[in-house]
Amino acid sequence: MPEKTKRARRLPREVRERQILDAAVEVFSANGYHAASMDDVAEVAGVSKPMVYTYLGSKEDLFAKCIRREAKRLLDAVAAGVDADMTPDMQLWSGLRSFFSFVGDNRSSWLVLHRQALSVGGSFAEEISQMRARSIELVAAVVVATGTKQGIGEQAEKSAEGLAAALVGAAESLAVWWLDHPDVSDGLLASWLMNLVWLGFGDLVKGEVWTPNFPATT
Amino acid sequence: MPEKTKRARRLPREVRERQILDAAVEVFSANGYHAASMDDVAEVAGVSKPMVYTYLGSKEDLFAKCIRREAKRLLDAVAAGVDADMTPDMQLWSGLRSFFSFVGDNRSSWLVLHRQALSVGGSFAEEISQMRARSIELVAAVVVATGTKQGIGEQAEKSAEGLAAALVGAAESLAVWWLDHPDVSDGLLASWLMNLVWLGFGDLVKGEVWTPNFPATT
Repeated sequence: MPEKTKRARRLPREVRERQILDAAVEVFSANGYHAASMDDVAEVAGVSKPMVYTYLGSKEDLFAKCIRREAKRLLDAVAAGVDADMTPDMQLWSGLRSFFSFVGDNRSSWLVLHRQALSVGGSFAEEISQMRARSIELVAAVVVATGTKQGIGEQAEKSAEGLAAALVGAAESLAVWWLDHPDVSDGLLASWLMNLVWLGFGDLVKGEVWTPNFPATT
Repeated sequence: MPEKTKRARRLPREVRERQILDAAVEVFSANGYHAASMDDVAEVAGVSKPMVYTYLGSKEDLFAKCIRREAKRLLDAVAAGVDADMTPDMQLWSGLRSFFSFVGDNRSSWLVLHRQALSVGGSFAEEISQMRARSIELVAAVVVATGTKQGIGEQAEKSAEGLAAALVGAAESLAVWWLDHPDVSDGLLASWLMNLVWLGFGDLVKGEVWTPNFPATT
């Protein structure tokens, strides 16, 4: 048995699985689902192909696990950026900053979650659709909490899920656009979206700009 | 030869093709691409299956033609609702009204364009991606024209495509959400999005609401 494989086998299973998933995200994002091979994944992870199958199952299982792990990492990163004690505009700003910063630092994750998962379709598209629904619920809860603080809870309750669906769609769409325009910084993207959804076109055409020092509303 | 088939053959080819495409949109939206059969399409269109193949090609060709036709109808409907002489907020309002009204009246088109095309993936996802890019370009041109009128053309130029990507994504996402919440009216959806992207959360949490009689900015 070669030294490398012997050493590899001593690592705990969860560490090994993480390495294989890391490698799989890179391979799927670079080659797409159909062109990606389990040989590539094994090679990038530095393990044998049978180990990939034993630990993570078929290529389909592996892709599904990549989607689930990357979706969870993304949602956790956004949630970690938002503190309920912040003013509403700073909550939104921090959430958007966290989102675009995650996508910028983890372009392969975003490619797998969006471009690859959607182009494969089938059950993976369903998985993405469930992740979107969860993001929308989380954002809607923030909209309702904010509306309630501002004394317009009932009004917020009615439109919260729709506004959240619009906001999530706007952020996603901008992150998809970013894949083809990588020269724009994550901070600039977040500030465009902040200007759009906090100030709105009505204020933008008057020449107003939101900044973190913009007068807060609470 | 049965009377019905004889009568059918007298129709001009373009009328027949339109009927088959209409039927195909219904069948694909109801059953999904994989489960839909050419027999179903022929039956709903009231033609023979060989005629479907002769006029529109394979199932894959037929689906691609459905996507292209429905995408064009949607873009045309939105463009028809927008008049460059309107104030910027009324242009946005009219465009959004046209979009949600089209989706409401043509739920099958929207299902084929979004849910089905994305869940099939492959070249169809590419087709949808090109349609999105075209919508973003059209909206960006309106943003630049509006910014230029307001004397902030240079600023609008820089952020227009990003803002347009965000707006298109917001409208799409809300229309996808609508598929699972059909009790909301198209007018209410358009007004939620108008409130979000014209006024922004900053004004919404202060209790402001945009209506077509809201003070215009020009």
